[in-house]
Amino acid sequence: MLEPFDDTYFMKKALQEAEVAYEKGEIPVGVVIVVDNKIIARGHNLTETLNDVTAHAEMQAITAAANFLGGKYLQNCTMYVTLEPCQMCAGALYWSQIAKIVYGARDKERGCIQLNTKLHPKTIVKGGIMADEASKLLKRFFIEKRNLN
Amino acid sequence: MLEPFDDTYFMKKALQEAEVAYEKGEIPVGVVIVVDNKIIARGHNLTETLNDVTAHAEMQAITAAANFLGGKYLQNCTMYVTLEPCQMCAGALYWSQIAKIVYGARDKERGCIQLNTKLHPKTIVKGGIMADEASKLLKRFFIEKRNLN
Repeated sequence: MLEPFDDTYFMKKALQEAEVAYEKGEIPVGVVIVVDNKIIARGHNLTETLNDVTAHAEMQAITAAANFLGGKYLQNCTMYVTLEPCQMCAGALYWSQIAKIVYGARDKERGCIQLNTKLHPKTIVKGGIMADEASKLLKRFFIEKRNLN
Repeated sequence: MLEPFDDTYFMKKALQEAEVAYEKGEIPVGVVIVVDNKIIARGHNLTETLNDVTAHAEMQAITAAANFLGGKYLQNCTMYVTLEPCQMCAGALYWSQIAKIVYGARDKERGCIQLNTKLHPKTIVKGGIMADEASKLLKRFFIEKRNLN
């Protein structure tokens, strides 16, 4: 029997957010934050739309989740994010004390694993969920952007 | 003759922001962002008020400066911040490509120097400006907080 609420299920939701970013001409990265199999926050990259380097999908979703929960710590939450978080977002996740981070594609240049960003000791990290789909969308975006310039 | 627009001048302005945070019961950290000796953005820590771990002084000032400039890069800007930035804020400063960061007190536990957060290769970092004043305000805050609990 299929588990309806597994990592793939929630990563598909994060990918839908990434597709919204793609349609807006943003680097396509999407996030959902989940508590007890319920999505409590969503976010997609808006750095171009808002002219703001801090407007990564993760940052918006962290703020939205805290707002939903009425408290700033995300100790019972799991973040599904299509791309490995950068230093800034991993730094925010450190402060949030989030329980788990599940990412799709690796970011071997600017990702928090390569750059050794410190996470909260209780935070579990799992990677590679729907990594191909996340990577394909990112590649399509950068190829199209190159062709436009 | 005194130089009116030196590092101490602008750090005093950042300390005034930290004092505003202190008065609100926030960990007292303040920021100003400067272009050509003009303050274009200010910020103070609001994590408690906003219930949001991302609401550090630096993050708000980066967003405000980009908004003022109409573009997301801060290549001609200097940030004056009373405490060495954390990983999240240094990660945001990396993306902003800021020209210079001047900080007051060191944060030897959670600061970006200790944690080796990557900054943009063109970003200059200078520390220790009015460090005693910044430290004293932080210590006062934590002593008072401990006595309240």
